[in-house]
Amino acid sequence: MLTYNFEHMDGPIYEHIYKCIKDDILSGKLKPGEKLPSKRTLARNNSVSTITIQNAYDQLISEGYVYTEPKKGYYVAQIHEMTILNPVSGKVSYDIDLPQAPDFEIDFSRNDYSPDNFPFSVWTRLSREIMASKKSELMRVSPISGVIDLREAIAEHLHSFRGMMIDPNQIIVGAGTEYLYSLLTDLLGNDKRYVIESPGYKRLAKIYGQRGIHCHYAGMDSLGIKVEELLRNEADIAHICPNHHFPTGITMPASRRYEILAWANEKPGRYIIEDDYDSEFRTEGKPIPTLFSIDACEKVIYVNTFSKSIAPTIRISYMVLPVHLVKLFYDKLSFYSCTVSNFEQYTLAAFIKKGYFEKHINRMRLYYMRKRKQVIETIKSSALYQYCDIIENDSGLHFLLYLHTDYSDYEIEKRLAKKKIRIKNVSNYDLIGGDAKEHYFILNYSNIEMEDIEKALAILVDILTEHH
Amino acid sequence: MLTYNFEHMDGPIYEHIYKCIKDDILSGKLKPGEKLPSKRTLARNNSVSTITIQNAYDQLISEGYVYTEPKKGYYVAQIHEMTILNPVSGKVSYDIDLPQAPDFEIDFSRNDYSPDNFPFSVWTRLSREIMASKKSELMRVSPISGVIDLREAIAEHLHSFRGMMIDPNQIIVGAGTEYLYSLLTDLLGNDKRYVIESPGYKRLAKIYGQRGIHCHYAGMDSLGIKVEELLRNEADIAHICPNHHFPTGITMPASRRYEILAWANEKPGRYIIEDDYDSEFRTEGKPIPTLFSIDACEKVIYVNTFSKSIAPTIRISYMVLPVHLVKLFYDKLSFYSCTVSNFEQYTLAAFIKKGYFEKHINRMRLYYMRKRKQVIETIKSSALYQYCDIIENDSGLHFLLYLHTDYSDYEIEKRLAKKKIRIKNVSNYDLIGGDAKEHYFILNYSNIEMEDIEKALAILVDILTEHH
Repeated sequence: MLTYNFEHMDGPIYEHIYKCIKDDILSGKLKPGEKLPSKRTLARNNSVSTITIQNAYDQLISEGYVYTEPKKGYYVAQIHEMTILNPVSGKVSYDIDLPQAPDFEIDFSRNDYSPDNFPFSVWTRLSREIMASKKSELMRVSPISGVIDLREAIAEHLHSFRGMMIDPNQIIVGAGTEYLYSLLTDLLGNDKRYVIESPGYKRLAKIYGQRGIHCHYAGMDSLGIKVEELLRNEADIAHICPNHHFPTGITMPASRRYEILAWANEKPGRYIIEDDYDSEFRTEGKPIPTLFSIDACEKVIYVNTFSKSIAPTIRISYMVLPVHLVKLFYDKLSFYSCTVSNFEQYTLAAFIKKGYFEKHINRMRLYYMRKRKQVIETIKSSALYQYCDIIENDSGLHFLLYLHTDYSDYEIEKRLAKKKIRIKNVSNYDLIGGDAKEHYFILNYSNIEMEDIEKALAILVDILTEHH
Repeated sequence: MLTYNFEHMDGPIYEHIYKCIKDDILSGKLKPGEKLPSKRTLARNNSVSTITIQNAYDQLISEGYVYTEPKKGYYVAQIHEMTILNPVSGKVSYDIDLPQAPDFEIDFSRNDYSPDNFPFSVWTRLSREIMASKKSELMRVSPISGVIDLREAIAEHLHSFRGMMIDPNQIIVGAGTEYLYSLLTDLLGNDKRYVIESPGYKRLAKIYGQRGIHCHYAGMDSLGIKVEELLRNEADIAHICPNHHFPTGITMPASRRYEILAWANEKPGRYIIEDDYDSEFRTEGKPIPTLFSIDACEKVIYVNTFSKSIAPTIRISYMVLPVHLVKLFYDKLSFYSCTVSNFEQYTLAAFIKKGYFEKHINRMRLYYMRKRKQVIETIKSSALYQYCDIIENDSGLHFLLYLHTDYSDYEIEKRLAKKKIRIKNVSNYDLIGGDAKEHYFILNYSNIEMEDIEKALAILVDILTEHH
């Protein structure tokens, strides 16, 4: 007669009984075809309710260990007929050491995100609702461009908040902007000349490099990327951040925008990739219309990401294609699968459609504005202020600190690193070589505690006033 | 005095009041600096509780519309100071028609998944638990290879159920196998000669094609891909499905496996990509060890996906690199970001670690086994049986039907399509041209209702017995 020990049990009783019987079947203690005790008998022997036994038997039946003969009872199945997964015991071991990122106590270049700022309760509720109400939709294979609910939500959002009038079918959703850039090179071809801004993201050059594209670099002036630099580089595709350039913080004025559009229009095959990555957090002044919205000739591909505007854990980015590229995209690339799970696509769609995205952005913009003010006031009232200028245009998640010093940027970086502090500088992002000006340090303040900022400022003063 | 109309309200009262006040601020009815009524007064005037008003005010404060002066009260903020997102009304419109897939009533080639088979309640509970307990981890940027919890869970799973002894650091997680193949070409180089099986997936050739790689095709015999075909094509990389080939269903026997490994070992730079996509659903017989586990010389890259083993909505795949490729991967590609969201990575890790994945696989294997038996019995007792042979090896989610007919595959396909039925055949997957044998039709039965199967069989009989 089967009786089991309940002493070292964790979890529900039925699961424990299910496990004991399963182990007995796998070990051969219970033989195929053997009749199991009735629910009533087993319940009595183990002093549990028959419902508990029923649950355990149901689980065993659903997994194929046990079958039932109507009006006769429960029997052990011929398990060799269906290779039951037979777990081997043993833990995994680690023998390979992965490269470790250098360890900083205070890091002004990090993109982590404070959990206090993420709308966990709303997100949890929405995803629960989606799982309850969209069961069939969730199980369907997503179109390559993303599910229509999400594309529609994004189109409405762009219309309301960026003044962009687009058809949801112009939108392509993907797992991160890097993935979308890779799709774009598939679409536009890697025989084109791609030009990116310097200073700018080295990563971008690496991503294009992996697609067999040797990027060229265009210098900037105080208004943004220069048209003569695009011409000098014989650019076909200009990949730029006109709305809040990283790292300089430059917002391209309207005059330059029209110059760049005119450049794109001069020759067929020229395109502009507009990366609008942190425009949601423009804290003051009128929002600037995107290049996409003032482009009348289908020359601009707009790219943005929810990894910045919500949190890095959300791996959802999107691009908006000019109408004539939509057809090309589907002709050429519709064999790909969408890279974002339906769960997150539908949850994000609800998050936008129900107004939570707007609320989140407004709340975060306020948070960043206050934090920025606080950081700037702290700098102004610190000993560092006599050695620096603050360069900011009320926009985005970072600003620049110009340091009055004879030390090279490299020297300052090295001395900061010794104190476990990282503050990157604009020359780190120089791609042309010696073109970027020295002494501009980038304060990505959003996720750093005020006391750490004060500590870092004090150390910076020590470094600047130390004798060579 | 502010009083609001509650007639056309949906949602909580505080949200309604918040909205009314916000609208009044945005429209200018409430001026910047204007003092708002006290909570008590506003509550009394609107016949609601002060807590409701408190909630509404809190919302307005958190979004920057209202500020509070301690001991004095609530005031309307200078909203022009911070560009409040100001929604423009208007719906999006659709002007672009996307290409539509042909519409079949019964489609034996579909990969949709019945919602009845997905463990919604477990998945919902686990994701809720993850969101409650892993707030900080969720907000951290994932390593390129995926979070360690998931890689560890996968390593344990592969150890227990596939007998593979691996270090979790050998695993790279990504949004779908297509994405991983693209990473692999980045890793191995696109100057290598890639060879895939024929019959096989055209899509694979397209994916490699986008990476600038012209795929070559190797023919198969009844044991799988032929070594002489790899040699003839001067292959460097052999991309194969040895455990359950699609579409032929062939499982490569041990002798051929060692031949292929020997081929890989003959020359440095040769690798085998082992796609193990539906091995979890092998319904009978001993599970076959993977090529990866019998490879002593680090020549095999193992690839698998949860899109098949759980549901297509889960866009999580992984590959296991041989140890010496791990270092190369991090040296060369660590600038990439991981393409899977932390939410799903941690949820899936818990799903595996807590034993639900094992249960799901066992339940689904049983489901597929029963469905397969039912389908085969239906065929055997149908009028079609005298015109066909069933070719199956108790494995995976499809089997083959060999039709005795003079009609060409194309003709049968066309006639089925007229009746809104799609059954693909092996020659659809012929990549070499005329090499694949005719009359082998692929029954991907898992998501088709029994009555539809009976209907399709009857129509097939009609077509076969019709006069030319």
